[in-house]
Amino acid sequence: MTMTLHNYFRSSTSFRVRIALNLKGLDYDYVGYKLIDAEQRGDAYLALNRQGLVPALELPDGRVLTQSLAIIEYLDAVYPDPALLPVDPFVAATVRAWAYRIACDIHPINNLRVLQYLRREFGADDAAVAAWFRHWAAIEFANLEADLAARSEALPFCFGAAPGLADLCLIPQVANGARFDFDMRPYPLIQAIYDRAMQIPAVAKAAPPHQPDAF
Amino acid sequence: MTMTLHNYFRSSTSFRVRIALNLKGLDYDYVGYKLIDAEQRGDAYLALNRQGLVPALELPDGRVLTQSLAIIEYLDAVYPDPALLPVDPFVAATVRAWAYRIACDIHPINNLRVLQYLRREFGADDAAVAAWFRHWAAIEFANLEADLAARSEALPFCFGAAPGLADLCLIPQVANGARFDFDMRPYPLIQAIYDRAMQIPAVAKAAPPHQPDAF
Repeated sequence: MTMTLHNYFRSSTSFRVRIALNLKGLDYDYVGYKLIDAEQRGDAYLALNRQGLVPALELPDGRVLTQSLAIIEYLDAVYPDPALLPVDPFVAATVRAWAYRIACDIHPINNLRVLQYLRREFGADDAAVAAWFRHWAAIEFANLEADLAARSEALPFCFGAAPGLADLCLIPQVANGARFDFDMRPYPLIQAIYDRAMQIPAVAKAAPPHQPDAF
Repeated sequence: MTMTLHNYFRSSTSFRVRIALNLKGLDYDYVGYKLIDAEQRGDAYLALNRQGLVPALELPDGRVLTQSLAIIEYLDAVYPDPALLPVDPFVAATVRAWAYRIACDIHPINNLRVLQYLRREFGADDAAVAAWFRHWAAIEFANLEADLAARSEALPFCFGAAPGLADLCLIPQVANGARFDFDMRPYPLIQAIYDRAMQIPAVAKAAPPHQPDAF
């Protein structure tokens, strides 16, 4: 029996979990939900995850985990090799803080359901929606880029020689930005992390274009 | 030497960390930043936390932690009594998922800077801003209430006999809702958790009205 990942190729939270599964060499069945058609609001998926948000990870015994960061913390505890979080509590908190700067302070504000609300209730057009997306991404990418630039040593990834929890949030956020013409030129250090990550087969294999439901 | 909490009485992310510190019996110095006057954007605070968001926890040795959930994970690792997360990885992931349902899927969308953008760029008035706040809170409170109602056993807090990480996110979110006339009547189980928590001196002491910068 293998795990089943309920997700969507373009969802950046799904992308995070796929990277974690692939880096740890874990096999999983893929079930895709077309968010544009609200397939994640169907009864079958709501029975797994009342939130009606992807991803959810169904374990071989049928238990279900939701919320990408909670899923990744679980995978890192149960399948610790390679580790996605360091052992030292202070460094681990720093890595988590970077992850949350993306997972809390960029991604939810720019999620599809929020953009749909802007269109519906405030009459936002494509340009206004894209400006909103870029506004929140740019604030935090500027902070992250400055933090990377201020470091005394250059690291290949956010916190070390291999991708960890912070990279797992950063990489999908970079990929997501391309859909809203987010200009990456002010963030060369972030771009370099993204480019290096995409050289890793486990990461590249997790990217949206390579998923079975991609269109 | 004690820790210093850089925060704001009304900030619900600050409230989370204050509960954690108080439950663990940790002494700390309190520094308040008036968000309405953008004091958290001043040079002194930006040197501690480039994001310019509260809270930040300055350790006795001068190292700084940011992001409320990362701070709480650190405190729980270094000062494990009482534990805010269970040991079992699956249950811990479930607790974290509840925390993230509030910390990612409600709070950032309703944060002050987002509401200010709605006013500035979309001309949202007080009524439209309050409707936005209530919309995102109501979606997830309905889900959490349904999850509580579906349980086979009634627990005094989200996951047990004492407040844990999920409660630390839920309690400030309930308090926050009162400022936007958020109707709690559809969520009696959540309200009961909040009321029980407020009977605990360590929690009540962390509430906004009891902070030195409250006005």
